[in-house]
Amino acid sequence: MTHTETIRTLGENESLKRTIARLNSSDHALVGPGDDSAVIAAPDGRFVVTTDTMIEDHDFKLDWSTGYDLGWKAVASNVADVAAMGAVPTALVVALAVPADTEISWLEAFADGLRDACQKLAPGCGVVGGDLAAANQVMISVAAHGSLEGREPVLRSGAQVGDIVAVAGTLGRAAAGLALLQSGNTDAINSYDAVVNTQRRPNPPVAEGVAAAIAGATSMLDLSDGLAKDAARIAKASGVSIQIDRLQLQGFEAILEEPARAIEANEFDWVIGGGEDHSLLATFSPEAKLPRTFKPIGVVIPAGPAPVLLGLQPLPEHGWDSVRG
Amino acid sequence: MTHTETIRTLGENESLKRTIARLNSSDHALVGPGDDSAVIAAPDGRFVVTTDTMIEDHDFKLDWSTGYDLGWKAVASNVADVAAMGAVPTALVVALAVPADTEISWLEAFADGLRDACQKLAPGCGVVGGDLAAANQVMISVAAHGSLEGREPVLRSGAQVGDIVAVAGTLGRAAAGLALLQSGNTDAINSYDAVVNTQRRPNPPVAEGVAAAIAGATSMLDLSDGLAKDAARIAKASGVSIQIDRLQLQGFEAILEEPARAIEANEFDWVIGGGEDHSLLATFSPEAKLPRTFKPIGVVIPAGPAPVLLGLQPLPEHGWDSVRG
Repeated sequence: MTHTETIRTLGENESLKRTIARLNSSDHALVGPGDDSAVIAAPDGRFVVTTDTMIEDHDFKLDWSTGYDLGWKAVASNVADVAAMGAVPTALVVALAVPADTEISWLEAFADGLRDACQKLAPGCGVVGGDLAAANQVMISVAAHGSLEGREPVLRSGAQVGDIVAVAGTLGRAAAGLALLQSGNTDAINSYDAVVNTQRRPNPPVAEGVAAAIAGATSMLDLSDGLAKDAARIAKASGVSIQIDRLQLQGFEAILEEPARAIEANEFDWVIGGGEDHSLLATFSPEAKLPRTFKPIGVVIPAGPAPVLLGLQPLPEHGWDSVRG
Repeated sequence: MTHTETIRTLGENESLKRTIARLNSSDHALVGPGDDSAVIAAPDGRFVVTTDTMIEDHDFKLDWSTGYDLGWKAVASNVADVAAMGAVPTALVVALAVPADTEISWLEAFADGLRDACQKLAPGCGVVGGDLAAANQVMISVAAHGSLEGREPVLRSGAQVGDIVAVAGTLGRAAAGLALLQSGNTDAINSYDAVVNTQRRPNPPVAEGVAAAIAGATSMLDLSDGLAKDAARIAKASGVSIQIDRLQLQGFEAILEEPARAIEANEFDWVIGGGEDHSLLATFSPEAKLPRTFKPIGVVIPAGPAPVLLGLQPLPEHGWDSVRG
């Protein structure tokens, strides 16, 4: 029997050393990890910054997600917010709190997830600093940074009446994955493991954020809390309403029909209310040439009785609330 | 009786709205809070970034620190890391997790602490983004950013044999405050409330970081884990040893003699092993004119049997370990 190494037995320094050794470096770091702060290049004289936190039993369960999954997801959810400004992710800092009896192998897997997600979703981006602490439950807090490369940021507030509303990435797939896990239906979970894995390791279309900015997107955000809630954010920030065409959602629904049937759920609820795919929702002038990956799902109309309409019906803003769940 | 408002009853949006309304804005924000990311000016084409986390019952107790204290301390501990690079703090992002039954008044006090610490310790710096989540215990994670204003960053690795070792700020005062709180000796706590308040709301000498950089500091760090441990970090990174002159620590000890006597503690242990004052430790060439606030405490010598010597004796690296305590 080998002795199990935990962060308590190894201490902060050794635990960090083993973890950091597995990470890729950022192409943009002038001074990397190891000093009081890192120094990152910001060639156009600006940087974008965002932060997102995941808490055990509120945002994830350790039974359902490995350390690797959580490292991946922490990167994905944060670089999606950078992409939603039309920026290229450059550098992350990661604060991790775990129970002191957490095995070092869990931390190493977490680091592998951070690394692989950076390399797959945001090449050139890497972890430039972090913090490791002991806590009663796992908490992962990431701040992500990016470069606008001289472009103007794409805000939530720029949607114009007449604009086309479009989505890059999937809708409802992560919510379907969560519902499968919650169902406890092992057959269904195994049959639709690709869907379940979107919940565990989302694949936000990061490069499409830059493509949308170049194509002249008038507004954009990361779909983290569901289409209904997030579209309302653009509508309110822009002083318009968004009319979604249900026909144009059919493609998103179709691929979730089978898993929905397997657990007697409704795929439309996932498509309209499910967050965590971290897809991009953007608006474009009708004259714009949409990047190929953006699928039109509606139009911007003058501010009406509700921020978001599905056809002619107001769409309630159901979705995720990070405090209430 | 009025109904007590908690973040659960108010929900994420309303809780955030009330909190954000109390914050000051950053002078450096081109796009402030409210979008997927903020956009911050980085006039010299670089930015510095650091992150630091505080966990309830590991780094603080809610019985001993108010929401205001914790907001202040979260800013102080992070801007000190920016200052230790020789940079000016510009922008913070703050991730806060609290139990869902936390009263909104606690969050409002936390925001007031963030604001006042920014205005007092790092004028021009403000919170540009954040995240609020529910958790079983309070967790505060901040990422702080700064501008080097065209200067080279001051690293830990530049100390040269013959350099003077100097400190800006207090030593051991926050540790004394913690010991007073832990003693439960109410008389002593009340008699030395200024010392206790250094534990609750540290006052790092942020502007002295820039002053040290301009004066040609060859290395610098933020004293967060205690002089013995942090001096060893400079020594190891620079490939030298640091020899501390106990005589030059007497001023730091003298002002802690009385509280030490009151609770039968040893003030020297606080001065040598206590972190959390977030003072700055730097090295300067013997030809440099030290900023007035830096007090010499030793010299840099060739790498010897121990990274840090107190006089002729190796100094053990006792200090704070964020995992083990």
